[in-house]
Amino acid sequence: MSAPVRVAAVGLGRWANVLATAYGRSDEVRLVSCFSRSEDKRTAFAERHGCAHDGSYAALLARDDVDAVIVTVPNDQHAAVIEQAAAAGKHAFVEKPIAVSLPDARRIEQAVAASGIVFACGHSARRLGGLRKIKSLMNSGEIGQVSVIEAVFANERGLQIEARNWRGDPGKAPGGPLTQLGVHQLDNLQYLLGPVARVATFGKPMYTRVENDTVNVTLLEFESGQMAYLGTNWACPGVFSINVYGTEADLFYQLDFSWWSDSNETDEHSRLTKRAFARATDDPDDFELRDEEVRISSVDHLRDEVEEFARAVRGDGTVEVDAHVATRNVAVMLAAVRSSREGRIVHVDELMG
Amino acid sequence: MSAPVRVAAVGLGRWANVLATAYGRSDEVRLVSCFSRSEDKRTAFAERHGCAHDGSYAALLARDDVDAVIVTVPNDQHAAVIEQAAAAGKHAFVEKPIAVSLPDARRIEQAVAASGIVFACGHSARRLGGLRKIKSLMNSGEIGQVSVIEAVFANERGLQIEARNWRGDPGKAPGGPLTQLGVHQLDNLQYLLGPVARVATFGKPMYTRVENDTVNVTLLEFESGQMAYLGTNWACPGVFSINVYGTEADLFYQLDFSWWSDSNETDEHSRLTKRAFARATDDPDDFELRDEEVRISSVDHLRDEVEEFARAVRGDGTVEVDAHVATRNVAVMLAAVRSSREGRIVHVDELMG
Repeated sequence: MSAPVRVAAVGLGRWANVLATAYGRSDEVRLVSCFSRSEDKRTAFAERHGCAHDGSYAALLARDDVDAVIVTVPNDQHAAVIEQAAAAGKHAFVEKPIAVSLPDARRIEQAVAASGIVFACGHSARRLGGLRKIKSLMNSGEIGQVSVIEAVFANERGLQIEARNWRGDPGKAPGGPLTQLGVHQLDNLQYLLGPVARVATFGKPMYTRVENDTVNVTLLEFESGQMAYLGTNWACPGVFSINVYGTEADLFYQLDFSWWSDSNETDEHSRLTKRAFARATDDPDDFELRDEEVRISSVDHLRDEVEEFARAVRGDGTVEVDAHVATRNVAVMLAAVRSSREGRIVHVDELMG
Repeated sequence: MSAPVRVAAVGLGRWANVLATAYGRSDEVRLVSCFSRSEDKRTAFAERHGCAHDGSYAALLARDDVDAVIVTVPNDQHAAVIEQAAAAGKHAFVEKPIAVSLPDARRIEQAVAASGIVFACGHSARRLGGLRKIKSLMNSGEIGQVSVIEAVFANERGLQIEARNWRGDPGKAPGGPLTQLGVHQLDNLQYLLGPVARVATFGKPMYTRVENDTVNVTLLEFESGQMAYLGTNWACPGVFSINVYGTEADLFYQLDFSWWSDSNETDEHSRLTKRAFARATDDPDDFELRDEEVRISSVDHLRDEVEEFARAVRGDGTVEVDAHVATRNVAVMLAAVRSSREGRIVHVDELMG
């Protein structure tokens, strides 16, 4: 066993605490220090997680005992923070989405390429036991050839957003739940079906006090020719579901996302059902269907993603969600926002150039 | 109790037999005669269902003991058959879709208006206990305000269609499963949310020998501003589902459509789940969800629709799915086909104009 990779947390909101708790379950990373502009936040975080704290980001980056930064600052600050890390020779892990604009995503890609640091983006949903099982059932041919996947991610957030909250601002959270929730499923969909070619989206503010969209529906067509639907909704009780339609079987996956932060238990609150033909004859009226539960292995998705990052930092393998993969997720998300605003079908190439 | 309305079956394929079996359970209609160009078919049908048979459609329409015709001839012959019935003063019930072109649908609307006959189209799915329950939960406010409905109708038909079968011909079944399956859900969606304003569709032939679409995905925006997704698929094990997203609760409805023809048992093979907040606080992390089964009354949907038609023939009330409602379903279906072919969002008004 190699020595653990030494990481420092930059940005100390709720999510930094969730990640640090998951890292406490790993022997492959060790939390060394932290930084936030708020002194109260950094002393509280350091005490809670048993690490040092630094008075400035520059001081943190100057430490010899820090190999990598874990970035959870607001999305529109990702690029600047990662550029500084890269310039200091520190590897970087950033929460999703990599950015909320493509110029920002490009800056990150360039900083990573120029410096040679290891970089990963935290799209952990694809690491869930349920998603891994869906992917393996697709790869094995057991469900035949897949035509369509439907993905939904919804919660009640839009019903409660106060006026002037940044989530209600189309500039800061374009498309509302499309950016804040949808990017999880866009990563899952591109993980399962490859690159998206074009999208059509309807979206609008519904049942909310803010001017931003709170409900969107999106169609996606992939370069493979396969198709998908993405529903993103901030105006209903929570849903996280994925349905896969194959020539031999359908899969229905439901996850109770309220267990998301407890990443060692998330999979236990999910359910995967496979529907196949119980009887298939030449007579279409004579088909019978059978539903069965599919066993899912439990994966600690937040620990899993940081351990892969740590191994890559030590020169052992590469990361699954690098800057390129994460940028592609943002490009599709922004294509969907553009489709909704302009009332037309948008090709992702328009944005990727 | 009034005397039963006397009906005659025109077109004697599989579906005519299914309907006649359902009518056998009713005291409000009585099957009097039948006609098909095939003498074998009409004698077999007459024997099986205990009715007379006529040697020509004109002879059937000339009978004094026939009040109404039940039309299950191929979709593109509906207009001519109904026009003749109207000219003979016979009321008419026709299987869905009312037509596969808007000029044909217009001919039917005009024949009905000019003659004053009672006319109904067989969109029986909205009569299912599950659909009635969804509608009543929406009307009562129990699930709050609805933003989105997702409807899926899928089966394996496209995997087996032989080359030259009419279902594989884009001229006879435009959009493939969009026409053959989707029109059921389009009626359900317009029943639940009102008229559709615009649609976006991706569709194509997949995993099939025919040139027609076998898979489509569609977005719908309603005049109310609410939105929907419709998935129609001929390349997977069967699915018939409706999900409703409301501010207070979500509804998940699944029906095993292989029980469709046994209309007195269909509802027993369906399941409606309601997801609401078990605990809601000011902290978004502190929400808990609870799923519960909703009891569904069983409705014999094929008997129910013909009994409503029979009552209207006797002057008691009107029908729910008249020529106007049925034409609107076809207009949305054809708008979706156009959207897919032309790669753009299509307003239903373009077709209804």
